[in-house]
Amino acid sequence: MNTDISEVIIRPEGSLQILSYQEAQQLCDVSDAGLNDLLKRCALAVLNTGASEDDEPTLLNKYKRFSIEVTVKGRGVQLVLKNAPRHAFVDNKLITGIKEHLFAVIRDLIYSQNEVLQNPDLNLESSHGITNSVFHIARNALLMKPNILPNIVVCWGGHSIPEDEYKYSKHLGYELGLRNLDICTGCGPGVMKGPMKGAILGHGKQRYKNGRYIGITEPGIIAAEAPNAFVNELCIMPDIEKRLEAFIRIGHGIIILPGGPGTMEELLYLLSVILHPENQELMLPVILTGDECSRQYFESVMNFIHSTIGPAATEKLEVIIGHARDVAFKMQQNMEEVRQDRKASSDAYYYNWRLKLELDHQQPFLPTHENMANLNLYGNQEPHKLASELRKAFSGIVAGNVKAEGIRQIKEHGPFELRGDPHIMEAMDTLLHSFVEQKRMKLDYSEYRPCYKIDR
Amino acid sequence: MNTDISEVIIRPEGSLQILSYQEAQQLCDVSDAGLNDLLKRCALAVLNTGASEDDEPTLLNKYKRFSIEVTVKGRGVQLVLKNAPRHAFVDNKLITGIKEHLFAVIRDLIYSQNEVLQNPDLNLESSHGITNSVFHIARNALLMKPNILPNIVVCWGGHSIPEDEYKYSKHLGYELGLRNLDICTGCGPGVMKGPMKGAILGHGKQRYKNGRYIGITEPGIIAAEAPNAFVNELCIMPDIEKRLEAFIRIGHGIIILPGGPGTMEELLYLLSVILHPENQELMLPVILTGDECSRQYFESVMNFIHSTIGPAATEKLEVIIGHARDVAFKMQQNMEEVRQDRKASSDAYYYNWRLKLELDHQQPFLPTHENMANLNLYGNQEPHKLASELRKAFSGIVAGNVKAEGIRQIKEHGPFELRGDPHIMEAMDTLLHSFVEQKRMKLDYSEYRPCYKIDR
Amino acid sequence: MNTDISEVIIRPEGSLQILSYQEAQQLCDVSDAGLNDLLKRCALAVLNTGASEDDEPTLLNKYKRFSIEVTVKGRGVQLVLKNAPRHAFVDNKLITGIKEHLFAVIRDLIYSQNEVLQNPDLNLESSHGITNSVFHIARNALLMKPNILPNIVVCWGGHSIPEDEYKYSKHLGYELGLRNLDICTGCGPGVMKGPMKGAILGHGKQRYKNGRYIGITEPGIIAAEAPNAFVNELCIMPDIEKRLEAFIRIGHGIIILPGGPGTMEELLYLLSVILHPENQELMLPVILTGDECSRQYFESVMNFIHSTIGPAATEKLEVIIGHARDVAFKMQQNMEEVRQDRKASSDAYYYNWRLKLELDHQQPFLPTHENMANLNLYGNQEPHKLASELRKAFSGIVAGNVKAEGIRQIKEHGPFELRGDPHIMEAMDTLLHSFVEQKRMKLDYSEYRPCYKIDR
Amino acid sequence: MNTDISEVIIRPEGSLQILSYQEAQQLCDVSDAGLNDLLKRCALAVLNTGASEDDEPTLLNKYKRFSIEVTVKGRGVQLVLKNAPRHAFVDNKLITGIKEHLFAVIRDLIYSQNEVLQNPDLNLESSHGITNSVFHIARNALLMKPNILPNIVVCWGGHSIPEDEYKYSKHLGYELGLRNLDICTGCGPGVMKGPMKGAILGHGKQRYKNGRYIGITEPGIIAAEAPNAFVNELCIMPDIEKRLEAFIRIGHGIIILPGGPGTMEELLYLLSVILHPENQELMLPVILTGDECSRQYFESVMNFIHSTIGPAATEKLEVIIGHARDVAFKMQQNMEEVRQDRKASSDAYYYNWRLKLELDHQQPFLPTHENMANLNLYGNQEPHKLASELRKAFSGIVAGNVKAEGIRQIKEHGPFELRGDPHIMEAMDTLLHSFVEQKRMKLDYSEYRPCYKIDR
Repeated sequence: MNTDISEVIIRPEGSLQILSYQEAQQLCDVSDAGLNDLLKRCALAVLNTGASEDDEPTLLNKYKRFSIEVTVKGRGVQLVLKNAPRHAFVDNKLITGIKEHLFAVIRDLIYSQNEVLQNPDLNLESSHGITNSVFHIARNALLMKPNILPNIVVCWGGHSIPEDEYKYSKHLGYELGLRNLDICTGCGPGVMKGPMKGAILGHGKQRYKNGRYIGITEPGIIAAEAPNAFVNELCIMPDIEKRLEAFIRIGHGIIILPGGPGTMEELLYLLSVILHPENQELMLPVILTGDECSRQYFESVMNFIHSTIGPAATEKLEVIIGHARDVAFKMQQNMEEVRQDRKASSDAYYYNWRLKLELDHQQPFLPTHENMANLNLYGNQEPHKLASELRKAFSGIVAGNVKAEGIRQIKEHGPFELRGDPHIMEAMDTLLHSFVEQKRMKLDYSEYRPCYKIDR
Repeated sequence: MNTDISEVIIRPEGSLQILSYQEAQQLCDVSDAGLNDLLKRCALAVLNTGASEDDEPTLLNKYKRFSIEVTVKGRGVQLVLKNAPRHAFVDNKLITGIKEHLFAVIRDLIYSQNEVLQNPDLNLESSHGITNSVFHIARNALLMKPNILPNIVVCWGGHSIPEDEYKYSKHLGYELGLRNLDICTGCGPGVMKGPMKGAILGHGKQRYKNGRYIGITEPGIIAAEAPNAFVNELCIMPDIEKRLEAFIRIGHGIIILPGGPGTMEELLYLLSVILHPENQELMLPVILTGDECSRQYFESVMNFIHSTIGPAATEKLEVIIGHARDVAFKMQQNMEEVRQDRKASSDAYYYNWRLKLELDHQQPFLPTHENMANLNLYGNQEPHKLASELRKAFSGIVAGNVKAEGIRQIKEHGPFELRGDPHIMEAMDTLLHSFVEQKRMKLDYSEYRPCYKIDR
Repeated sequence: MNTDISEVIIRPEGSLQILSYQEAQQLCDVSDAGLNDLLKRCALAVLNTGASEDDEPTLLNKYKRFSIEVTVKGRGVQLVLKNAPRHAFVDNKLITGIKEHLFAVIRDLIYSQNEVLQNPDLNLESSHGITNSVFHIARNALLMKPNILPNIVVCWGGHSIPEDEYKYSKHLGYELGLRNLDICTGCGPGVMKGPMKGAILGHGKQRYKNGRYIGITEPGIIAAEAPNAFVNELCIMPDIEKRLEAFIRIGHGIIILPGGPGTMEELLYLLSVILHPENQELMLPVILTGDECSRQYFESVMNFIHSTIGPAATEKLEVIIGHARDVAFKMQQNMEEVRQDRKASSDAYYYNWRLKLELDHQQPFLPTHENMANLNLYGNQEPHKLASELRKAFSGIVAGNVKAEGIRQIKEHGPFELRGDPHIMEAMDTLLHSFVEQKRMKLDYSEYRPCYKIDR
Repeated sequence: MNTDISEVIIRPEGSLQILSYQEAQQLCDVSDAGLNDLLKRCALAVLNTGASEDDEPTLLNKYKRFSIEVTVKGRGVQLVLKNAPRHAFVDNKLITGIKEHLFAVIRDLIYSQNEVLQNPDLNLESSHGITNSVFHIARNALLMKPNILPNIVVCWGGHSIPEDEYKYSKHLGYELGLRNLDICTGCGPGVMKGPMKGAILGHGKQRYKNGRYIGITEPGIIAAEAPNAFVNELCIMPDIEKRLEAFIRIGHGIIILPGGPGTMEELLYLLSVILHPENQELMLPVILTGDECSRQYFESVMNFIHSTIGPAATEKLEVIIGHARDVAFKMQQNMEEVRQDRKASSDAYYYNWRLKLELDHQQPFLPTHENMANLNLYGNQEPHKLASELRKAFSGIVAGNVKAEGIRQIKEHGPFELRGDPHIMEAMDTLLHSFVEQKRMKLDYSEYRPCYKIDR
């Protein structure tokens, strides 16, 4: 049975989308210089939302005959979709939210390509140039709105979590929504969906009409974390580092819900930023929360941070187990403090310009044996630097354990050799074991075998 | 611990509410001629939403010190609430949805009192006069909107139902919402809340901004079925019969979800209307639906109807178990038929004027021993008449079994004496037994004892 | 050549207009009990806007074949117009503003008839009952809006004035519009149109989107002063006295532009109100203004008032010749004072409840010989009473000079006999002569002959 | 007396204006690389609207102490204006329309500079690159809106015209407005203001809420033709040729009102486009119109065109004297034809992509003696080429007669030598004479002396 929708023509509704012929051509261009390939992959991910998540190669394989074409005519832009997955349709009509996502993809791909990546004015090799690029892309996506007081809560956490934790994330979203706070997530399923779903209901009770459910993603993960249709502001950043930067410059507070090792990486990234000496005066509230069954998870995480980076880090993090209402209440209080902080420093409410990021935070870390061996995992350095090195070590170890490429490298070259304080290595070991035990990694406890050795 | 909010002053937000001094006085007048008592009871019910439901005397008792005052000044109307229940507040701020409900109560009480009940132009002793009153109250509550195609689905069912049935009702609402259908219910918890909650999410995905979650209630039941805060259009009809009439004239299709004997009464009321010879040409689609565990319930109900009123009735009712998507799909198809029907007959889309109601449907039935004895429960009459008589018999029997007043009457005067065909009595008996077995009545199976006897 | 539009069907656009069948029938009912005759007359006046003004009998005569029918179907109300005057159409399509006026007529006729004139709750024989009726009709017409600060400027003056005065009234409206003030007039041509036209341009420059151009009229004069299509809020009061009351209770300031003796009557009415002892504390700012060529007119008027009622009256009136900008600036300042006054006294911003009107102000004066003879035109009484008596005397004299009925009465019964102080009579004589000289009355200077004699 | 406003801080209202720090710096940068100088000149022109028009050097001289600074903070962008001309203020508050213009200036200067002029993707040496640039700037200024049917009427004509012609232009605008047509002009006074003013009133009567009053200008003329405050969509193109291209690609029909020789140049430009063989199939309706006193003007113009380019040109131009209603009616009919034409060719409604412009139309003509001598003014060429050459000749002759630089050149080097058919030269001579006679040039009839000689 062929369940695809053979052909459908859609146009942006009430949106301001206008393309030039040249832009439409770029989007249809299947050559390497063109954008059709990228568009096709992203569009397919968007259309696949709600299906049990897939990784991208599988998706492209499954929908080999899928195609997308962009034309400009009469009242405006038209998309011609062929053989699109049926999930995205209700009675053969594309869900409006998903339709909007398709046009968001087009908007961001075109803009990133023509106005950012190829713009000589934006120096992508400098920290400020990258910050400016993130700003431009977000502005073009209308993510920044003037005349709104700080109220964006970023929720991070795993995309595949137990039912109870999902329910808690919904309840948390509901309590945030009742306080007219807006939600920003990585826009996939799980913890990225729960808070939005809850917030919609909370906003409904408060008749908060312009609730924002912001999803920030990037082409590399959109397939695995397809934006759920509740997302009403979608932005596709060019890569994962710009996406992380967008979160912390656009969000006014951050809530970390339970997740796996990926969430751990995000937390270490965050620590490397908020521990930076130049950021000490800045307000960027962070709360770690989950329901009762996540208590153990957060204990492991906090223990790890305490025994590696130390109390300077743990005192920046508040953990609240099981009181969604309190979390929401505190976040709301925090928003007011953020506002005063921004006002006092004459900074914009909609973009945290003052946050200091090192170029090191803004560029990808590639976990090769060489890069891993060069990490500095000794305690005798500034906490934010250690946090940054740990993030990289962690990234490599996770890769070596679960990612295809990482596993292949370990097989070929043997375990990574790390240089650092033994108690730090040990803490990492303990943490990863606890994740396995709590079934937060995709591998068996029995199978787990460290992919690194300490070189003293 | 005193958990009440000692005093709060609220004003309508963006609404058009303007009162004259005289109207404000009526609302503050605690004498019998005044409306303060009625306002206070309704307001308390509205504020108590979300708490485990209470009946009214308990409520008034629990919040003895609650008071409400209405003033007119400066920018408009103000309400002063004292000692209001805390449930309605988030961090000491009244939930906006509930605030709107308070102003809806004021609007409807004033209008019903001054423009309907005391208006010599509206003859409340005639069928047409009553229909016209319902129209006027609904119009004043802005329930009727021009230029909208038929899309209001009324959902009936019990307010206290098992978790699975509640989940099904949410899922059904979601599927209806995905099809841009609006929801109208009796506005309490349970089946009245589930479809709205689901529809909000469905509407969100479709970016259907003006989703309508209509609640129609009346002062006698508002305490037991406090409008949930999702309801964004609330209307308080003067009594239960006008409320039922509002449902079937404003709704474009009706879905009956599982419930108890109350739902059964509503179904028999509905049958007495749609079986009326003058209504044969009218489109008023009805679907009975629930999840798998409600299958037995609907079988009992359909069996009863088949063996009493006969196939003329059952063929008007479609039962769909467990396919929320199909139910929603059919309803959407039905809406188009309703539209064509209204268009062909030049009837308004927003009010089903042509539906023929007998004065008998529009006036309350009081289950005294005398009234019960006079019921005609023989099969040799027109189906719609039998449906109407059955509704009354049913109403009496339920009262005799579970309502305080009814039980007292039975105790005093012995069982009701009914006259009718034995197989009809038997069917009723069977049905009630099955309800007890399925725990859809508040009494034990062992305790159940018929409160009537057949007089041959 | 037949220039009428033979048949056109129109429906309210985006409005909330919903009628019951009964109401539609009332509007089609051509019997005395029905409203069709009144509707037809008002509708014809509305449609005739822009044509050189006509009086009603001529209009009805000219458009004998004009008919209007109201039906309720499908999406809502429909009007069927037959043989309507072509002026109201652009390329055979009814001008939207005029379409809105037709529906405003329907709204107000139905409401006045059913909810006010026939409502036993509103005692139309008491001052408060009348004030309440005006409130109800205005509220139903949505004239009163909550949450808006005082900003309604009522402009009074003649409907047939010289070109220069018309230009000045436009310029004044422009300056008012630049200050985001709204305009309310009697809604005909001349001085009722100029300020609106100007304000639209001023509002445009200020991007003041919700500019209000309120016209208040009544069935008796609508034909002579057809609402110009700029009026975007039209209200038809049942009679002239309720219309006058609506002006002074809804307006926050009053500007009097040049006019004829009718304007003089309005000014005396206003003086009888603002000189009332109970109104001494109230803010109701009044400015008399016009361009240079109206200087003489205002001098005559002020002299008359000074020599009859005295300085108590003149000091309530500010005259500004030729500085539209200053008038607008002062009015804007006044608005803030009005706001503070209302706030201090807890009165509504949208309706001046505290203004004391005597029943005498609220009921019509019929200028018979008997009523005229009974006027008390002596100086030894309270100023507001003298103002009231003068208004009546003035009304009679004007009638005796220019109105068909009045002229007939004088012809038949001889001149009115008035009793009063000679200097008052003289002042009146002087004023009327100056009007004739200035060509502000429709009669020749040579022809003018006093229609009264003083009885000492 | 110092009438300037010493300091005022303004921020965009409800707009989406967000700037990066870098952009704010560019706008404050007073060096050659920065934009402050350009911003200051344009801002001053915008603020000077309504004053009797000045040329730029005078303006800058008059307001030497004027300064403008741009900052980014808190809720968004702020402008600090110092010593701004008082005309733009009402009671010390900047007129909202003018405030919007200031932010439009910022938007366009930044965008043109950063995304167009410095963008390597847009080849400004190719016809298509220029067309694309115009598209990008107009899109960024939100001039192009999807889902709107063709309805933009461009009105060209002189900015200093007699009162009667101004009145006619207002009346024409009123008739266009009554038909829900939008207006686009060069946005200065005179013929650029009249149609907008009229259209606002027409739109008001039709309750056409989103009336568009589009002004397209460029830095070189903004001082002489300051946008009147009615303009609610202002776009500053980088130069005069892009501005002309914007008019004909964005407008759906063109009306030419009386003007001076400048208008003549525009008409010849238009002819060179619509006579181009590749544009023969395109719909771009053109009407020449004015009141009775402009009859002579249009006769001279049509005679000139007929005797030079020939009937191929005149039959493209319709002249209607004194029937504003007919002009508006025809334009409305034309809009429907334009729509069908665009639809049939799958072209966008909001940008006339298919219109063929030669690079020659898109680049400026500099009237040096050499360039003039090289013009080909012989009849034996394609009409559109002759039109183009004539435009240039005309441009030079006008310059030689009235522009400072041109007069200087003639004085120095003697008259221009032109090569062409004598009858063409003669026609030009006749036309210019008639302009002088009709006082449409700023010089005396007696003084007029041809600045060219024919070289045979």
